[in-house]
Amino acid sequence: MKKLKRNERIGALVKVLSDSPNKVFTLSYFTELFNAAKSTVSEDLVIVKRLMDKMAIGKVVTIPGAAGGVRYEPFSSKEDIGILLDDICEAINDTKRIIPGGFLFLTDVLYNPAYVSKIGSIFAEYFMKNSIDYVITVETKGIPIAMMTAHALNVPLVIVRNENRVTEGSTLSINYVSGTTGKLRTMYAPKRSIEKGSNVLIIDDFMKGGGTAKGLVDLINEFDSNVKGIGVLIETIEPQDKMVSDYISLLTLDERSYDEGIRIFPSERFDSEKS
Amino acid sequence: MKKLKRNERIGALVKVLSDSPNKVFTLSYFTELFNAAKSTVSEDLVIVKRLMDKMAIGKVVTIPGAAGGVRYEPFSSKEDIGILLDDICEAINDTKRIIPGGFLFLTDVLYNPAYVSKIGSIFAEYFMKNSIDYVITVETKGIPIAMMTAHALNVPLVIVRNENRVTEGSTLSINYVSGTTGKLRTMYAPKRSIEKGSNVLIIDDFMKGGGTAKGLVDLINEFDSNVKGIGVLIETIEPQDKMVSDYISLLTLDERSYDEGIRIFPSERFDSEKS
Repeated sequence: MKKLKRNERIGALVKVLSDSPNKVFTLSYFTELFNAAKSTVSEDLVIVKRLMDKMAIGKVVTIPGAAGGVRYEPFSSKEDIGILLDDICEAINDTKRIIPGGFLFLTDVLYNPAYVSKIGSIFAEYFMKNSIDYVITVETKGIPIAMMTAHALNVPLVIVRNENRVTEGSTLSINYVSGTTGKLRTMYAPKRSIEKGSNVLIIDDFMKGGGTAKGLVDLINEFDSNVKGIGVLIETIEPQDKMVSDYISLLTLDERSYDEGIRIFPSERFDSEKS
Repeated sequence: MKKLKRNERIGALVKVLSDSPNKVFTLSYFTELFNAAKSTVSEDLVIVKRLMDKMAIGKVVTIPGAAGGVRYEPFSSKEDIGILLDDICEAINDTKRIIPGGFLFLTDVLYNPAYVSKIGSIFAEYFMKNSIDYVITVETKGIPIAMMTAHALNVPLVIVRNENRVTEGSTLSINYVSGTTGKLRTMYAPKRSIEKGSNVLIIDDFMKGGGTAKGLVDLINEFDSNVKGIGVLIETIEPQDKMVSDYISLLTLDERSYDEGIRIFPSERFDSEKS
């Protein structure tokens, strides 16, 4: 390949690194890609690191040693998170969203790529320190957010089913009480989906009573693995005592007074921990 | 903000553009972000365009006029697509994947963020010319791929359910015959999920008889909207006559001879159309 100029290499480095968050690239990978010397690529990386810091758009981490290299970690500034959460609250704040049974219609928000890619990134940044091996969620509405979180962490996603499916092979199952409907349900995960002793992050779109999250915690224990975090996009203000305690939410919904409009706001819990 | 150097602006431009594929950014957005003159940003964009071309990692398209600006379109070279599909075939080619009933265990592949983000990008590139307004899929296994396709196209995802859920509000439903199980099933989509007259792209993980895809086609027609493409990751070699005809698949699976190992290979149909 024709040699690239420095600013072209910078652009290409940013592209390759940020396309694969948390993936380690060796220095040799880039020297071959660019047909450039190690010292040249090292200097390029210093520039990339600095520009990401300056713009608050990510972090480039150098891993020393034989298995070393560089990886890109997503980063969202407190300001960016605030703007995103305000945007989502504004999108949700429409009484036409209240549907029979007192539920909120949310799927357009939960399946909006611009929102979910950023939400996934925020969860990934928050839980990255916990050495996550898998992200887990229950079908269906939390899948897009969980997928984007898994992508930002560079780990596999596990989707737990509400029915036992022929295409999943042998499954582990657990009974749980859905917080939304109060009904007893069963969830199923393929036996081969999680290796023993893994660190698992639970991601879901919505938490009311916390029954689903509690079910996932029990399921992860059945896999002899460790729950290393629970993140939900929206929690309801009531019941205040959820069936799980150690979780974060980005938004809080007050379901008590739909007559006066929809009250949804950024969660204090997340905000204070982040700062 | 402190002024950035050219190579820092180049890096930031690549990051912002490629984070939001197919989103139009005005020139003023970048002049404000960088505190730089229009002429400066224009020159930066020329460099970004050129480096993306050289490296075959994307396209930067300029939209002229008052509502104009620039947008990033993902691009995968034929070589990159070949490497990805070979990788996936190799991952699948393991007889331990054959599970009772003659099904293949595939969820680890279908939920692998590195694979699905690239697959989504390939589908987006292929169907981009069709002015897609929505990506649609049926729960559950196709959702990650469909989500990544929607992200690359910058359009909403619609997830059709197999049960009527309280949280979806009023739904449109249609009966269909599942090609995998041969059973009559019903699929449901929220009435407010697709606007009349929209262009819809169907994305799924697997096609055997094409019954699910046919069901989605019927459902889209019920929404007075247009099917503008069908993309599946894997199709089976038999039955050769699917219930839909105008579709693309990336991989073809020969289910007839599991005794001799798993035969899966890149689909000719896609390959020849792409070249």
